[in-house]
Amino acid sequence: MSQVEILDTTLRDGAQGEGISFSLEDKLRIARRLDDLGIHYIEGGWPGSNPKDARFFERAGSLALRQATIVAFGSTRRADVSPAEDANLAALLAAGTPVVTLFGKSWQLHVERVLGTTLGENLRMIADSIRYLRAAGRRVIYDAEHFFDGFAANPDYAFETLRAALAAGAECLVLCDTNGGTLPSRLAAAVSRVRAAFPGVPLGIHAHNDGGLAVANTLAAVEAGVTHVQGTFNGYGERCGNADLCAVIPNLQLKMGLPVLAPEQLAALTEAAHFVSEVANLRPNPHAPYVGRSAFAHKGGVHVSAVLKAAESYQHIDPALVGNERRVLVSELSGKGNILHKAAELCPDLDTPTEQAREVLREVKELEARGYQFEGAEGSFELLLRRSQPGYQPPFELLDFLVLVEKRRGTGIIAEATVKARVGDEIIHTAAVGNGPVNALDRAIRKAILPFYPELDRVQLVDYKVRILDEEAATAAQTRVLIEASDGEHNWNTVGSSTNIIEASFHALVDSLELPLARANGNGRARLRAPTDPVPRAQSLPEPERAGSEPGARQP
Amino acid sequence: MSQVEILDTTLRDGAQGEGISFSLEDKLRIARRLDDLGIHYIEGGWPGSNPKDARFFERAGSLALRQATIVAFGSTRRADVSPAEDANLAALLAAGTPVVTLFGKSWQLHVERVLGTTLGENLRMIADSIRYLRAAGRRVIYDAEHFFDGFAANPDYAFETLRAALAAGAECLVLCDTNGGTLPSRLAAAVSRVRAAFPGVPLGIHAHNDGGLAVANTLAAVEAGVTHVQGTFNGYGERCGNADLCAVIPNLQLKMGLPVLAPEQLAALTEAAHFVSEVANLRPNPHAPYVGRSAFAHKGGVHVSAVLKAAESYQHIDPALVGNERRVLVSELSGKGNILHKAAELCPDLDTPTEQAREVLREVKELEARGYQFEGAEGSFELLLRRSQPGYQPPFELLDFLVLVEKRRGTGIIAEATVKARVGDEIIHTAAVGNGPVNALDRAIRKAILPFYPELDRVQLVDYKVRILDEEAATAAQTRVLIEASDGEHNWNTVGSSTNIIEASFHALVDSLELPLARANGNGRARLRAPTDPVPRAQSLPEPERAGSEPGARQP
Repeated sequence: MSQVEILDTTLRDGAQGEGISFSLEDKLRIARRLDDLGIHYIEGGWPGSNPKDARFFERAGSLALRQATIVAFGSTRRADVSPAEDANLAALLAAGTPVVTLFGKSWQLHVERVLGTTLGENLRMIADSIRYLRAAGRRVIYDAEHFFDGFAANPDYAFETLRAALAAGAECLVLCDTNGGTLPSRLAAAVSRVRAAFPGVPLGIHAHNDGGLAVANTLAAVEAGVTHVQGTFNGYGERCGNADLCAVIPNLQLKMGLPVLAPEQLAALTEAAHFVSEVANLRPNPHAPYVGRSAFAHKGGVHVSAVLKAAESYQHIDPALVGNERRVLVSELSGKGNILHKAAELCPDLDTPTEQAREVLREVKELEARGYQFEGAEGSFELLLRRSQPGYQPPFELLDFLVLVEKRRGTGIIAEATVKARVGDEIIHTAAVGNGPVNALDRAIRKAILPFYPELDRVQLVDYKVRILDEEAATAAQTRVLIEASDGEHNWNTVGSSTNIIEASFHALVDSLELPLARANGNGRARLRAPTDPVPRAQSLPEPERAGSEPGARQP
Repeated sequence: MSQVEILDTTLRDGAQGEGISFSLEDKLRIARRLDDLGIHYIEGGWPGSNPKDARFFERAGSLALRQATIVAFGSTRRADVSPAEDANLAALLAAGTPVVTLFGKSWQLHVERVLGTTLGENLRMIADSIRYLRAAGRRVIYDAEHFFDGFAANPDYAFETLRAALAAGAECLVLCDTNGGTLPSRLAAAVSRVRAAFPGVPLGIHAHNDGGLAVANTLAAVEAGVTHVQGTFNGYGERCGNADLCAVIPNLQLKMGLPVLAPEQLAALTEAAHFVSEVANLRPNPHAPYVGRSAFAHKGGVHVSAVLKAAESYQHIDPALVGNERRVLVSELSGKGNILHKAAELCPDLDTPTEQAREVLREVKELEARGYQFEGAEGSFELLLRRSQPGYQPPFELLDFLVLVEKRRGTGIIAEATVKARVGDEIIHTAAVGNGPVNALDRAIRKAILPFYPELDRVQLVDYKVRILDEEAATAAQTRVLIEASDGEHNWNTVGSSTNIIEASFHALVDSLELPLARANGNGRARLRAPTDPVPRAQSLPEPERAGSEPGARQP
């Protein structure tokens, strides 16, 4: 049991951030990952506010989480209705979670001018709603919205709201800096007052970042006696965001000595942070504390040589503790070591000598300079390794393709692709339509090779992402496509990059289909030729074919 | 005279940030802007470390700054040489600034393991160097590098270094959290110890953000008695950056009541922050406290209606105080009030009655259900409003298009587009190639309409973003395209959505070109027809054309 419990609200408050729009699947994937990481509570949404959130709770039961408790969020009943008549409370109960977060008003201004009700009725709204949920068997975490502004304006009333929530059965009183503008020293003083007035009652903190102080406010609250901490991954959230759990958690654990996650879970923090930003389709902030790509990057020669003499000279922690790494100008040696390490991990069936690793490293560097990124595409990296094996034979080759999108008055839009592929000695020329150019290309490629590899029927593309790299080059920009494929048991990620989105997609598609075939054939050899044949490098054509000698490929 | 003085080190420490590379002209422009804003000291660079910084100081004299003092930065002399023999000190003097920032070591670890010298020699290095600079008529601000780590490891020695600097003539002792990992409570305790040991001596703070706490640490130091504050604009700097002055300054002035800038200068803060990011060629962080584009953006209908009732209900300050503004985001969560509010803001030239607002709202909801998002595309929303005006005449119509991507063995990839457009009574059928399908389409559209609207020549696409909405539908997913266009003076954002990325891009492209033309024609009427003509709704075809009666459009 950790001394501080974390409630992650990325899926609820984080989703309020401008530019964030999670699908239901996105939310389920994030919930699973947060559970792996050891987060205690996952606030999944506000079922009373939109249907997507309600459906999340229907599906959440099937997640089979190992540790985390899923929590639904909602507001106190409306003024002047009974709890049983309140649609929002009904939706909250319907979500079926054992724990709910219920928010209520602490600030006189909000009660009178926003809700347009009386101070007394607001107290009844808090009490009734919590009692109603408790009677239905729910545990209730009470979010005291705008607590610090309310406390500054009318401390007596702010305290009354907390007393009402506690008496009605709330198990934790969460003090919210909803507008995010409270200074740490004032926030700490207010928390201390609450701490003294409610001895023994678990208190929580929910801080927004409008003053750039959400992380500091969260730590200040913990120093003042709070044990329940709310925040979001990467600090996502409305306006300037919420307290960033990726900074809060390591600060609590590594700086304040409060155990929050198991050490091996903490070591997965950087990966989890990048996973969430990947799902949100937001570029990870390279300068993010602890988890940013530049967080332990050393630029100047002086810093680099100092860090090599004494790691702590310019690093506040060992980056491995949070799964991050020191970045210095990558020496050829350490780079090659990385490749060998990764090869042993991904392809235990292969034997990768040093010379070959050096060659793959060269290729990785060349491709990354052209916009590839293998960090999120280990499938394509694994293929580089397998293709580098002597005697590797690609299971198929895509020779030509043509993609066409057409729109004429009075008709819908048409997308069609033709591909010419070779499998062994056979040439297949076929075509397909799709609901977009990449979908058409995907279908045409599958149509061409499926007869030879019926096992690919199980392979589905489960994710397709596009990232514009130099966005300011606008429509002429370099484009990176990331694809996730699955055979129902395992998933793999592949990458392609080009200024042409169709070409980038093509490379990622080919990798996503080639990888399972290459794996199935062990040492990278395809089944259709004798393993001793001399073979070309993957994706390039052997000389005889360039001269046009292959059979069956003489279409105009 | 303000009670807190600001030293901006964007041009020195900020330039160490990964991805930042200022030219000499960039540095001069930023210095001028910081002077306008009322910053007290501008640290221009480290003349001993690189020639560009040395040249900055040659040119800085010609800036004719009104208030700010330009400061040069450098290190104490090397071990075992005299100050007069030290090239770094010579460069510092050559910079010719009245004030220099000199940094020295406070941490035993650094003295012994990084410098490889003795504790005694380090004290002499500090004292000698400062005395040398003072003898040459310079004022010296002393940066105690790694003060807080040094203080934690060996407080007596850390104090000795400060005493050496003070005795040698430093006018201000700046305590640096160089590794950025100190917690605010510990930092405040250390500052208080220094404050007590050096009564009456001006103290400063220089905080890095490795724990996400740089702003809080800076405020905590000021609360503990520091009066000199160092930081950078937008928090630029090595690893996780420096204390962000764009958050520090308003926190000091608006929250702690310490005058730093004149009110009209503070009101230029947002513009200055964006100017610096523009010059740094980095996208401004929309979620930045105080100055971010989303810092006062309200999304949900509940927040919006509350903010309209009482501005402070979800805003910690009046955004005008820092030159920012409240933004009401239009989304499917909006009400009619949002639309009317937005119409008045975006199109003050139009008169939007309630009935029309209801119609536009219906359209917004319908389009958002199909994957559009107007929150990031106010240009497309403005076009919805303009198109809803009676008598709106689209300045051009795109009738047909065809996009083709082809790859054949032995050749590169080809992308080509044809478009057929109508402007007034003329039909134009043309084609263009591009480095990708969207780029080809963009070029073909411009080629078709530019002869009629030469003013579009100034319009450039400056950003192109793709978002896959239901990513797990993989290549069959709904795709949203966001485009930012600019005429050099103003930028606007448009959106398109479709399962077909080409079609989505097409809609966003058309909007990006139609908007400036619609604006130029006032009430949305195009110049090519009489404003009294009955006209079809934008982007749909009038009946006569569906019947094929237009002249010149009979290409096969």
